[in-house]
Amino acid sequence: MIVDTSKKILIVGLGLLGGSYAKALKRFGFHISAITKDISSIDYALKENIIDEGSTQLDEKIISEADLVIFALYPHVFVQWIEENQSLLKSGALITDVTGVKRSIVYKIQDMLRPDVEFVAAHPMAGREVSGVENSTDKMFIGANYIVTPTVKNTEEAIKTCVELGRLLGFSNVTTLSPEEHDEMIGFLSQLTHCIAITLMTCNDKEDMEKFTGDSFRDLTRIARINDLMWSELFIENKDVLLEQMQMFIDKFSQLKTMLENEDVDSMREMMRHSTQRRALFDKK
Amino acid sequence: MIVDTSKKILIVGLGLLGGSYAKALKRFGFHISAITKDISSIDYALKENIIDEGSTQLDEKIISEADLVIFALYPHVFVQWIEENQSLLKSGALITDVTGVKRSIVYKIQDMLRPDVEFVAAHPMAGREVSGVENSTDKMFIGANYIVTPTVKNTEEAIKTCVELGRLLGFSNVTTLSPEEHDEMIGFLSQLTHCIAITLMTCNDKEDMEKFTGDSFRDLTRIARINDLMWSELFIENKDVLLEQMQMFIDKFSQLKTMLENEDVDSMREMMRHSTQRRALFDKK
Repeated sequence: MIVDTSKKILIVGLGLLGGSYAKALKRFGFHISAITKDISSIDYALKENIIDEGSTQLDEKIISEADLVIFALYPHVFVQWIEENQSLLKSGALITDVTGVKRSIVYKIQDMLRPDVEFVAAHPMAGREVSGVENSTDKMFIGANYIVTPTVKNTEEAIKTCVELGRLLGFSNVTTLSPEEHDEMIGFLSQLTHCIAITLMTCNDKEDMEKFTGDSFRDLTRIARINDLMWSELFIENKDVLLEQMQMFIDKFSQLKTMLENEDVDSMREMMRHSTQRRALFDKK
Repeated sequence: MIVDTSKKILIVGLGLLGGSYAKALKRFGFHISAITKDISSIDYALKENIIDEGSTQLDEKIISEADLVIFALYPHVFVQWIEENQSLLKSGALITDVTGVKRSIVYKIQDMLRPDVEFVAAHPMAGREVSGVENSTDKMFIGANYIVTPTVKNTEEAIKTCVELGRLLGFSNVTTLSPEEHDEMIGFLSQLTHCIAITLMTCNDKEDMEKFTGDSFRDLTRIARINDLMWSELFIENKDVLLEQMQMFIDKFSQLKTMLENEDVDSMREMMRHSTQRRALFDKK
């Protein structure tokens, strides 16, 4: 379906990610529309020619004409939108999303969705420390991962379309995981890292430290500049997994602390060599 | 003294940092010599014209002619070098270093040093994840901090010279701290961050995670590729401070974990806003 550029794509939520999707997809000649809350975002996107039409209202014409609808909203806003407005969707439409948690969203949406509309969930692993459509750029998908999280309710064709969307957007790696595998993986790779960064940033309020810092501290706290509304919601939605992983981190950190207390240099060096070896796997290819 | 480019500078330990010092200082026309353990490092530096002469031996002529000697060695190797070879130094020579811990080094060296040689300690807050003179570059000093850690035993003139050295090397900020202040600051900004990075890198050995990672995890583990010999030594040398800071981190992290357990969204969001606000201070100017 996707390669057929006569199809119309609607993006609901035209922020950093939604705008970057629009930029990436417009290059292929798709008809792109957008619904978002601020008129300034629509104005910007029209001026930049990354959407063909847009509205801050629930424009019935725009919604009913869309073959593919991409939701780039906060998790609870996405669920609420479907609850209240799914009757406006075109019969046969495919919907997908960008939500950073999956178990708590995917089944809820699929259970309530009209039978003639299909939802295949996806998580683009890309972001920036700035927000808004004005900061959008499809460059952030280069070298990045796109994870599709299908369930038994999904058709092969819709899953394929969603995988193809990831490739069209420019992601370097497109993979599929179950919602459960996704949440475990992302709990560790993304949510735990954010917990660590905000803890490091707030556990010591000594003044003037910025005058003495090197790049290590800057690197570990880059993501400590955080959208509190969105991330608190993501943490809660993945609570069980994240709590387990926070405990796993505390256990290992406490082991290192004991090694230092005991001046157990051999164990510390072994841990560091293990760390060095594993880190090599994570270099951008 | 430094601005007088007729003076001779000796670098002991021609690795990544020593080599970068040589590159930065050679531009001013100083006579630069080096003593290091591998002949390949000397050969490279001579070929690149960043040193005028070098040796893998304790070359008495080179050492006795140097007005400024910069030690870029592991902490215990530096102490041992002074113990065994300080008689070779020129009377009136100034020595400095790059060691990442100060309390345990500075007083030990100053107490044993000949009265006609002065040691002003310094810590260049710059590094890379690669080592060796072949990877040296004076670009890594741009935007970086250089900390001089004088004691009551130091003369005003020698401190000034060392501050000037930091500026000549190209560091953007040159500051002074006491050895105690330095170790507390660096324990937090550098050593604690390395403890966190290696813990995150080793606390979960699940396979294939690199296929799903975003930049957050990569950022937090960049420094998890670590020189185990050097860092275990730095941790031990700053043990008391680092243990205290590890505990401070665990306490704050556990608070966040409790907030999540209780689904205390307000407290989580407050912590995130605090984090966001504080992080702004640490942007590179």
